[in-house]
Amino acid sequence: MHYVSHLEGAIDGTVLPFGQLANLHNGRPIWVRYHLDRIRDAVTPADIARRPPSLWRYRELLPLPLDVEPVTLGEGMTPLLPCPRLGKELGLSRLLVKDESQLPTGSFKSRGQTACVSMAKWLGVTRVALPTAGNAGGAAAAYAARAGMECYIFMPADTPVVNQFEAHLYGAKAYRVNGLINDCGKIVKDGAERMGWFDLSTLKEPYRIEGKKTMGLELAEQLGWTLPDVIFYPTGGGTGLVGMWKAFQELLELGWIAKDTKLPRFVSVQAEGCAPIVTAFDKGERFADLFPNAKTVASGLRVPVAVGDFMILDAIRASGGLAATGREDAIGPWMRRASTAEGIGICPETAVCFDVLERLVKDGTVGRDESVVVFNTGAAPKYLEALPAELTSLDKDHIDWAALGG
Amino acid sequence: MHYVSHLEGAIDGTVLPFGQLANLHNGRPIWVRYHLDRIRDAVTPADIARRPPSLWRYRELLPLPLDVEPVTLGEGMTPLLPCPRLGKELGLSRLLVKDESQLPTGSFKSRGQTACVSMAKWLGVTRVALPTAGNAGGAAAAYAARAGMECYIFMPADTPVVNQFEAHLYGAKAYRVNGLINDCGKIVKDGAERMGWFDLSTLKEPYRIEGKKTMGLELAEQLGWTLPDVIFYPTGGGTGLVGMWKAFQELLELGWIAKDTKLPRFVSVQAEGCAPIVTAFDKGERFADLFPNAKTVASGLRVPVAVGDFMILDAIRASGGLAATGREDAIGPWMRRASTAEGIGICPETAVCFDVLERLVKDGTVGRDESVVVFNTGAAPKYLEALPAELTSLDKDHIDWAALGG
Ligand SMILES: Cc1ncc(COP(=O)(O)O)c(C=O)c1O
Ligand SMILES: Cc1ncc(COP(=O)(O)O)c(C=O)c1O
Repeated sequence: MHYVSHLEGAIDGTVLPFGQLANLHNGRPIWVRYHLDRIRDAVTPADIARRPPSLWRYRELLPLPLDVEPVTLGEGMTPLLPCPRLGKELGLSRLLVKDESQLPTGSFKSRGQTACVSMAKWLGVTRVALPTAGNAGGAAAAYAARAGMECYIFMPADTPVVNQFEAHLYGAKAYRVNGLINDCGKIVKDGAERMGWFDLSTLKEPYRIEGKKTMGLELAEQLGWTLPDVIFYPTGGGTGLVGMWKAFQELLELGWIAKDTKLPRFVSVQAEGCAPIVTAFDKGERFADLFPNAKTVASGLRVPVAVGDFMILDAIRASGGLAATGREDAIGPWMRRASTAEGIGICPETAVCFDVLERLVKDGTVGRDESVVVFNTGAAPKYLEALPAELTSLDKDHIDWAALGG
Repeated sequence: MHYVSHLEGAIDGTVLPFGQLANLHNGRPIWVRYHLDRIRDAVTPADIARRPPSLWRYRELLPLPLDVEPVTLGEGMTPLLPCPRLGKELGLSRLLVKDESQLPTGSFKSRGQTACVSMAKWLGVTRVALPTAGNAGGAAAAYAARAGMECYIFMPADTPVVNQFEAHLYGAKAYRVNGLINDCGKIVKDGAERMGWFDLSTLKEPYRIEGKKTMGLELAEQLGWTLPDVIFYPTGGGTGLVGMWKAFQELLELGWIAKDTKLPRFVSVQAEGCAPIVTAFDKGERFADLFPNAKTVASGLRVPVAVGDFMILDAIRASGGLAATGREDAIGPWMRRASTAEGIGICPETAVCFDVLERLVKDGTVGRDESVVVFNTGAAPKYLEALPAELTSLDKDHIDWAALGG
């Protein structure tokens, strides 16, 4: 029992069957399509309000059959936190942060993994593999462990230590590769048949987007089935942004948000050291070129080429939004400034968003009375290298109280 | 409007007034007492079930007046996760982990801080201070930032880098001290008057326990207002264990759990490198001696002397439980083993619990059909030093598929 009508090739609309393993179609990602009319008859927002606070409350809008147990680590609804102090500093009257760092494994990646690992398990997969240079590996390793699957992870040798730690912690078969993320991706692709593993790479299977779209569903529910004026989202592979845009379309069609709702403008944020989507957006193109020498401390944004580039760019444009870069050297300072203002631990990817937000308020692109939601996609303590903490030393036997501010 | 009847010195039962700042009484902690009869008339478990999934749903059982906004980072109810695979390995049929790592700042410390910072703010405090060698500093810094308070933090120079990072991230005035945690505590005590700061040290103010007791309230609610047979809890300063025991007493008196409920036995777990409570428990004493040369990678358990020692030991004994140590060199292996079995990232403090649990199942102290809840108190990625991850290197140009297990 499920509400999926079919799968659909995103590049050409080809209808594909649901209920068997799927990766790409014509080298490009695949959408999941639902019988939204049947869902409208089967469930209402009021029913959903009575369910446990987990992304699995949107069960009818997810692909896993209703009678199949999901592979879950108890991913709760993440809080949508008002940020009046930071808003005031930026000149905004309605600033909110949706804090994804409180999910299992400390990032929004868990939304995608609970969905795609649940589906893989249902479809009989016992071995998965993926390339990663960041949080996706930790999340995949955790959910694979929860599912009792074998998980192979291939990381560039310079992947942050904490992500290597996570892969090891969860018992993944994890390897450091003398190459870049695309070299790692090639290993996964080359080995698929020989190794009998299922490729969980970003957007190379249809279900991670479905998990990520719950960010959009939660946001709407938390705002009483309305939406903000603008959403700032840090963009790497693009699953978060593309997933949310899909969620908004589905909510409109369901009538759970009013037919005349003005959908939020997306501001897709990248770091100046790796900004293929911004480059393509500025050139008016639908496909992005590989970004050479990608380098940023915001490791989740270090994605020089995205297989779903056109889906990201389509969503940004359809929303009336834009793509923009933040400055690399503003990342550490913005982590500290935003975290200090509101007590929310801001990750480097989101720090980049604040750098762009400040600029767009100043130049009038974002209005001072618009409601703005910024996604905090990961847990700050996973990025020690982004903000060196050099605390002052104190001699316990000679304390200068005046110097302490007494 | 609130339901507090009075404060009470824990060492001698002295009645103390509520509604003004309080630290210790006769050098020992203070309890908060409620008009439980009035709470029973005002609210029912069914009312609570309809409230948002946050520890503030137990509002009447918390000291903050109902019309005062709490200082909150959206701390959600943490999931209670069945662990059948790990249970089977250990020989247990009903093993559950309550995963506190999904709270703001990645540890259960946030429960205490949302409560005590809310109370401090209500009582007019604008500057707080505390000594810490672990997660409490990060949580205090975050909640103080959320409240717009100044926060002073004093840490031994060997405090884990991630905890120093957190203090810096949230803009605390944080210092590394050439001494131990008690030297840091002395600075906070000595400076209180001169610096005009309020002392937030563990158990040196009454409200952290109240926040921590919500672990017990949530557990009961999640189990349909019943309780497990045994609870494993890693013990440092003791707020978690003492708070939960207080919660169970209050639930009994309210009648929210049945009058004849057999309360859980507490297994209070410490690391062999710092085990003052275990030592006192074994000797049959009510007060613990300072544990010399305290040293363990489970930094939350590095508390050589606890001001609430008698409260911890009273609770363990009243519950029919015990105190026991786990092996230092089992910490890394247990983190990996438990995390791999269930996909939950297990922190070092909880790894120690699993080492003790395995022993107590083997020797029959814990029965194979008893329901056992283990608290995962913190986020594993905050402890890189506890589990060195040495991943295998792979040459992208010469892949030996057979060696990979193909
Ligand atoms: C913290 C964080 N933020 C943002 C992203 C970007 O992800 P996506 O563009 O796939 O939504 C990532 C991906 O690794 C991430 O780890
Ligand atoms: C992860 C973790 N577990 C357990 C403890 C023990 O805390 P307590 O005994 O105060 O409940 C701490 C305290 O620092 C901690 O950080």
